[in-house]
Amino acid sequence: MTAKDQSFFEPISGFDLPRFAGVPTFMRLPYVPPENQRFNEVELGLIGVPWDAGTTNRPGPRHGPRQMRDFSTMIRRINPATGVDPFGLVSCADLGDVGPNPADLNDSMERITRFYQSIVNNKITPMTIGGDHLVSLPVLRALGQREPLGMIHFDSHTDLFKSYFGGYKYTHGTPFRRAIEENLLDPKRVIQIGIRGTMYDGEDIEWGKENGVTIIMVEEFFERGIEDVMEQARDVCGNKPTYCSFDIDFIDPAFAPGTGTPEIGGPNSFEAQKVIRELKGMNLIGADLVEVSPPFDPSGGTAYLGISLVFELMCILAEIIRKNPKK
Amino acid sequence: MTAKDQSFFEPISGFDLPRFAGVPTFMRLPYVPPENQRFNEVELGLIGVPWDAGTTNRPGPRHGPRQMRDFSTMIRRINPATGVDPFGLVSCADLGDVGPNPADLNDSMERITRFYQSIVNNKITPMTIGGDHLVSLPVLRALGQREPLGMIHFDSHTDLFKSYFGGYKYTHGTPFRRAIEENLLDPKRVIQIGIRGTMYDGEDIEWGKENGVTIIMVEEFFERGIEDVMEQARDVCGNKPTYCSFDIDFIDPAFAPGTGTPEIGGPNSFEAQKVIRELKGMNLIGADLVEVSPPFDPSGGTAYLGISLVFELMCILAEIIRKNPKK
Amino acid sequence: MTAKDQSFFEPISGFDLPRFAGVPTFMRLPYVPPENQRFNEVELGLIGVPWDAGTTNRPGPRHGPRQMRDFSTMIRRINPATGVDPFGLVSCADLGDVGPNPADLNDSMERITRFYQSIVNNKITPMTIGGDHLVSLPVLRALGQREPLGMIHFDSHTDLFKSYFGGYKYTHGTPFRRAIEENLLDPKRVIQIGIRGTMYDGEDIEWGKENGVTIIMVEEFFERGIEDVMEQARDVCGNKPTYCSFDIDFIDPAFAPGTGTPEIGGPNSFEAQKVIRELKGMNLIGADLVEVSPPFDPSGGTAYLGISLVFELMCILAEIIRKNPKK
Amino acid sequence: MTAKDQSFFEPISGFDLPRFAGVPTFMRLPYVPPENQRFNEVELGLIGVPWDAGTTNRPGPRHGPRQMRDFSTMIRRINPATGVDPFGLVSCADLGDVGPNPADLNDSMERITRFYQSIVNNKITPMTIGGDHLVSLPVLRALGQREPLGMIHFDSHTDLFKSYFGGYKYTHGTPFRRAIEENLLDPKRVIQIGIRGTMYDGEDIEWGKENGVTIIMVEEFFERGIEDVMEQARDVCGNKPTYCSFDIDFIDPAFAPGTGTPEIGGPNSFEAQKVIRELKGMNLIGADLVEVSPPFDPSGGTAYLGISLVFELMCILAEIIRKNPKK
Amino acid sequence: MTAKDQSFFEPISGFDLPRFAGVPTFMRLPYVPPENQRFNEVELGLIGVPWDAGTTNRPGPRHGPRQMRDFSTMIRRINPATGVDPFGLVSCADLGDVGPNPADLNDSMERITRFYQSIVNNKITPMTIGGDHLVSLPVLRALGQREPLGMIHFDSHTDLFKSYFGGYKYTHGTPFRRAIEENLLDPKRVIQIGIRGTMYDGEDIEWGKENGVTIIMVEEFFERGIEDVMEQARDVCGNKPTYCSFDIDFIDPAFAPGTGTPEIGGPNSFEAQKVIRELKGMNLIGADLVEVSPPFDPSGGTAYLGISLVFELMCILAEIIRKNPKK
Amino acid sequence: MTAKDQSFFEPISGFDLPRFAGVPTFMRLPYVPPENQRFNEVELGLIGVPWDAGTTNRPGPRHGPRQMRDFSTMIRRINPATGVDPFGLVSCADLGDVGPNPADLNDSMERITRFYQSIVNNKITPMTIGGDHLVSLPVLRALGQREPLGMIHFDSHTDLFKSYFGGYKYTHGTPFRRAIEENLLDPKRVIQIGIRGTMYDGEDIEWGKENGVTIIMVEEFFERGIEDVMEQARDVCGNKPTYCSFDIDFIDPAFAPGTGTPEIGGPNSFEAQKVIRELKGMNLIGADLVEVSPPFDPSGGTAYLGISLVFELMCILAEIIRKNPKK
Repeated sequence: MTAKDQSFFEPISGFDLPRFAGVPTFMRLPYVPPENQRFNEVELGLIGVPWDAGTTNRPGPRHGPRQMRDFSTMIRRINPATGVDPFGLVSCADLGDVGPNPADLNDSMERITRFYQSIVNNKITPMTIGGDHLVSLPVLRALGQREPLGMIHFDSHTDLFKSYFGGYKYTHGTPFRRAIEENLLDPKRVIQIGIRGTMYDGEDIEWGKENGVTIIMVEEFFERGIEDVMEQARDVCGNKPTYCSFDIDFIDPAFAPGTGTPEIGGPNSFEAQKVIRELKGMNLIGADLVEVSPPFDPSGGTAYLGISLVFELMCILAEIIRKNPKK
Repeated sequence: MTAKDQSFFEPISGFDLPRFAGVPTFMRLPYVPPENQRFNEVELGLIGVPWDAGTTNRPGPRHGPRQMRDFSTMIRRINPATGVDPFGLVSCADLGDVGPNPADLNDSMERITRFYQSIVNNKITPMTIGGDHLVSLPVLRALGQREPLGMIHFDSHTDLFKSYFGGYKYTHGTPFRRAIEENLLDPKRVIQIGIRGTMYDGEDIEWGKENGVTIIMVEEFFERGIEDVMEQARDVCGNKPTYCSFDIDFIDPAFAPGTGTPEIGGPNSFEAQKVIRELKGMNLIGADLVEVSPPFDPSGGTAYLGISLVFELMCILAEIIRKNPKK
Repeated sequence: MTAKDQSFFEPISGFDLPRFAGVPTFMRLPYVPPENQRFNEVELGLIGVPWDAGTTNRPGPRHGPRQMRDFSTMIRRINPATGVDPFGLVSCADLGDVGPNPADLNDSMERITRFYQSIVNNKITPMTIGGDHLVSLPVLRALGQREPLGMIHFDSHTDLFKSYFGGYKYTHGTPFRRAIEENLLDPKRVIQIGIRGTMYDGEDIEWGKENGVTIIMVEEFFERGIEDVMEQARDVCGNKPTYCSFDIDFIDPAFAPGTGTPEIGGPNSFEAQKVIRELKGMNLIGADLVEVSPPFDPSGGTAYLGISLVFELMCILAEIIRKNPKK
Repeated sequence: MTAKDQSFFEPISGFDLPRFAGVPTFMRLPYVPPENQRFNEVELGLIGVPWDAGTTNRPGPRHGPRQMRDFSTMIRRINPATGVDPFGLVSCADLGDVGPNPADLNDSMERITRFYQSIVNNKITPMTIGGDHLVSLPVLRALGQREPLGMIHFDSHTDLFKSYFGGYKYTHGTPFRRAIEENLLDPKRVIQIGIRGTMYDGEDIEWGKENGVTIIMVEEFFERGIEDVMEQARDVCGNKPTYCSFDIDFIDPAFAPGTGTPEIGGPNSFEAQKVIRELKGMNLIGADLVEVSPPFDPSGGTAYLGISLVFELMCILAEIIRKNPKK
Repeated sequence: MTAKDQSFFEPISGFDLPRFAGVPTFMRLPYVPPENQRFNEVELGLIGVPWDAGTTNRPGPRHGPRQMRDFSTMIRRINPATGVDPFGLVSCADLGDVGPNPADLNDSMERITRFYQSIVNNKITPMTIGGDHLVSLPVLRALGQREPLGMIHFDSHTDLFKSYFGGYKYTHGTPFRRAIEENLLDPKRVIQIGIRGTMYDGEDIEWGKENGVTIIMVEEFFERGIEDVMEQARDVCGNKPTYCSFDIDFIDPAFAPGTGTPEIGGPNSFEAQKVIRELKGMNLIGADLVEVSPPFDPSGGTAYLGISLVFELMCILAEIIRKNPKK
Repeated sequence: MTAKDQSFFEPISGFDLPRFAGVPTFMRLPYVPPENQRFNEVELGLIGVPWDAGTTNRPGPRHGPRQMRDFSTMIRRINPATGVDPFGLVSCADLGDVGPNPADLNDSMERITRFYQSIVNNKITPMTIGGDHLVSLPVLRALGQREPLGMIHFDSHTDLFKSYFGGYKYTHGTPFRRAIEENLLDPKRVIQIGIRGTMYDGEDIEWGKENGVTIIMVEEFFERGIEDVMEQARDVCGNKPTYCSFDIDFIDPAFAPGTGTPEIGGPNSFEAQKVIRELKGMNLIGADLVEVSPPFDPSGGTAYLGISLVFELMCILAEIIRKNPKK
């Protein structure tokens, strides 16, 4: 790839075009949907999945990708803490949104899986921007089809419920139970961090533990500290391919009010940045950030927090790609 | 029914308990769900249907009934323009919400229809508070099962679409096409008033007209004036049983911002009151008010407007019931 | 009074100091409290009465004067419709706020009456900015002490209630019944315009009519038109001293959401301006604008509407003062 | 009590009725006002006191109970940190609101005290949801009538002021001075935690200290840590009957903006949960959570925080009741 | 141009991709900046000018184009009142934003003029989306360079001020005085409609009248009615090339709160649609819609109103282009 | 100075006039602009600089002083942590706003510098309330004209950029580079604390370090702790005259959403108070608090946080002045 090529896959600078100007793609990157001829050059792709059919109480994450595209125009290119410039390391692009069928859940899941299969086929590392947490399931169906993945999961909920409301299997409270059942995730290589919030019955946690999932309640998280917990996370997930799923409700609602199922008593934004920076060295093959729900935060602060964390995840993913570039 | 009985079915006055106090039922009426032994005494029942599974863009009407219950505490008992006191005329109650299955559209429709069949069986006149506009279909399946109904419909959209997004038949844009196809509505006795907003292709309007539906665009509405249009409405619907469906987006978004598909250029709140007052004398057997979406109006003004119009509809319905009381 | 004196009593122009700069007095006028030595030179005085102890449901008008001072910085000096420049006609000033005792209603009323007696003594025409509608009562106790006044009253409520909640006599629903009982107002010279909203029992309207008050419901207002109604208003009030009381809830809540007891179906902002302009020629000796409640409209639009109407009232009052100047 | 009975006093599950559906009682519990025949079966009762007549600056807590009822529908039944299921331990119910007289402070206080006397008579442990902080005084007049109580008090203000604005004795800044003077509280068994915010003169703190009240400023709270301070709290209050009063402004305004007198530099939501969990083992006979003011937080985050802490308090109270059940 | 070509220049339908999905270009049209090889095929181009350096009080219109792009995804393709489908008539595209220099007003004006010269050179009819009203000046410098244009101008202000704050010539209150001085506009063919709001001194109106500008105050507008005024407008502008400039503050702030200098007493949204529809038959060579300021309307209603009116303008422009197509 | 004089320079107490009443000056202090005859008696002056011409993305700080004046009415007189009563120690006043020229950046800077020269001449210690960060430059041109100052700077950005957008030198990202170049600041005595947020290229940090500026990234700040960092700050600044500049975006956006360029991962409000309290003993000759942008936080929480920190700064400054009083 020539220098000229690389510049194609870089963001527009705020010194060239003011941040409030221009059509808002993720991170002001070029828009390179699958039909674009340069699609297969992309190494790190940002994908919006504006879908919340799995939401059982307060809807809205379908509007997340657009608001995060808007706020992403405020992100500059270098990580102040780590010095990483993901856009300098790898070819990045906004791959567009996977268009769901708002009237058919299963059709939507198939559309999403199909999109991610083309991503897998083109060896693009996907950074997914939801959408509610059910989004992770069809993504994992593409990413985890060859072998079960490990997963590091930041959330206030386990999303390991058996079913909802009389047996319904696909909601934003069940994706990872399904993924384990479908052998997309290896439960022994799954760790869930930040769990809290009042519970129905604890059946989800019990099932998780019985199947080998490591669950770190938020009290333990605060007591042991980030370094200690994250060391365990790296141990649990090991060297094999691992996915990272980040639910914005991991963070306290004072910092992230714009989400459907907030739970008080969570980490702050600095702690959120720190856990992501501690992912360094893991064998991540993709990540998602989900559950940003604009209607519940008209100020947009949650979307800005969400996209800021997407940038942190991109820094981690870019370094991993650089070490093992697609050829 | 004794005086004592009647007082059971009346609202708590703001002179007895301040309006900000108390558990908020609709209009501060007694809560009389079907399992309550006095259910069959109710003449005019308010029912919440917190369901928006038919919404194709901006979700939220599932939260409508709760916010309207809250704002209904500001409604007093007498209509200032007509002098009607619906609570003095008939026994009114909050019949509770029909609980949908948020994960299964068809199951939800069946639950709703079943609930309204018990209402029909008990000869209660239903005043429904949605929910999105798909709510009207399962309600009509109960109310219109004996013979097709007439309908007076206030809206900025016809809701006569054939299908949505690759053939999907049940959305908030299709209920009345389904209702006509299912013979629940007699299209020749259906009038739609206030239609406006950019259009996909006009197929809905054409289909409606071909089937005999009377469609009054908003320009015609303003030009001819309310009296003239409403006289036509009474002609179209005739003396046979008629349903009234009121979509809050009939009204201009400056007055009703809290809705999913607003269209500029609509009537104001006084005109909305006036068209309802012109329903006097029609043979209404039920009504609904739908599409109030709280997440898009945190101030609550839209819910207050919605519940104020519910009161106007109750005044009309109460007079009709008084003339033809259930025995 | 010399030219130099006059300029002291004029607003700072936005061409000299940007509108967003400076300590916000009403209309950017000089702050001239009673202890100021030039107090007695003032001809038209703006007074804030930040008090809402009479509010029975949603509190907040105590915060009205401050937000209206803020938005008053956007008002320029000439009326575009009438050409009147009130600041060029008479000496205007911000006389400050009457500090209520938030813990004692009667003490507060006495403080207000005392303040307005000094205004009467100095022959200043008062333009009062509330506060809730109970504010009008202690103001009238000062202005109407010599002889009962006429009143033109814009509102959606009569504020003629006998009492509230077990006999309590002083609330924002009762001031004008008290004022008539106390012989501060001559009911035969009182007209109320815009009345609407659901009613408790209609006792207020009956009492008003029995005592000779003219009550124009909003339906009649719209049907007859502004000119016709206002001609009647001038007839009712006659040539003797008359007060004008303007409750912001006269206007539809789409235009004025920031108020405690909104009622749908009201006039718009242009109609509000127009009724005030039709006050020309009446013998007004003071006016108030009340019930702007900032907590229920964080955008501030209601305060801006309120202070815009205060400007319209000032234009009317200034012309009257100019014709009959204090000597 | 049979199993069937117990289930009457439990919340409706979100798996049976979606959380956005249904008339919102506290925690989706049955509504059991004093006139209900099962009132005396209740062990832990939630009571709303929608009253803010003691508020001296920004009003609004009168609207607190309703918004907290709404958000309480998002609370599930088990505490994730302690495993406690209060609804499984004791019979819980929403006892309704104590209706204040918004126009008479003393009458309101008498109504509240009378209501709580019936609670005492029925041996119900009360969990009160305010309302402003003056609410605690009439509650204590019922609970502390037999002997002075200890109190653990979380707040940014001492609420120990002598009087306000020229001698007025009853405001939300004075309840605990009155309670000590009236011998309802034993000052030596009172501890106040989290005190901060700019001060008028410090007279309140001096008076408190002179009378034996233990006052922990927020700086000391942060420096010593929660465990240490709470150990002291248990020492100070001892084994005798103790009340817990929690003012939402104990918490930093980033987490709890919806309150009348916020003070920056406060604890976060996790620390708030933690101090409540440290109440375990104290002899609590009731608790309140006050000063949630919806008009100053339209997003509702403060109400959600408030009701989440009410759940934490319920867990503590339920365990205490279980150990010493009413017979 | 082949059918295939045309479909390139059409919007994505909400039946194919949900309206909440996808990167938001104006009207979901293709993004065709000047460097795109199909730029010269465009007939009707939408251009954002995110610039508010001319704003003297409340800033924000620089954020207008992005929020209007977002809300434009809710616009469908056919005009319900006129039946026009602009996308079927002419090739439409989003030409992107003209990037201003936020730190240099003159450089920004030159950049804008240069951009519009390329538009003129490519015979594209421009529909401009501001930005504040100063935006119109550099646009007119390109469009009016050959001969002075007529202009139909909807606004509550004349924008004919001489200068601001000590002689500064370029602000959003002065563009059309400059344009007349620079011979870009023929004052005798300029009509301004809707003028209102308090005035500094009236010098702007006097200057306008002296130079032949026709000024219709809002009172006259309401009194004469839309048809009559618009007939005059067509007369004034004549058959020669004419520009249309629409300031969102033409409309009442209840409908359009998101603007920097709102003036009460304005037309509603239906009247705004109607005046645009009356432009039919004029020789329009371009149009702009300016002064939508998102920070002052977080709900976005103003942006939705603005983009809805842009659609109305597009319908008019498309019909004109169709009659005189570029060859 | 006599007792009477001193009381002139003190705030009005909330016990005398309710906090919601009165024209809002900073801290309810007397308004003493330069033309006031007592101007030269002031020791500690609060000055508003409502100017944001240096803002490159989201504008709004021009509205900061007015909203902070409003919220300052909630501040009482004594610091709860330190016991300092600044109003009892020194003569304080609101000196008004420096009126900028909104249309000319250089003229505005000259106006500001001139105003501060009169402050220097009158030996008043200035506490400046912005406005964006460019405000600091013209202030330093007055304060630092005799000798270069030290500076302690709290911010998430260095504001040491060379230029912006093609060479433009004066923006809110460049003031301190200019101040060092103009010899107003001694870079070796400058420390910047809290730096974070994605970066363009790091050139600002490199330049700062090369010139001797001490830069503490937020990660280092959290790791070392406040005491340690602040000890270094006192060392760096030494005993010579030092300025303190506090950008509200130093604090995390959950606490301070109302600012143009928020960066996640920042300190909380308690930490902000604490760093200011650690300034004790430094030789501060003035301070500013900047970048509060009301349009991005309609709730006003950011303004309340800002003015609360201004009070903390006043306590520090008052003690310094008391030790070295002007004679």
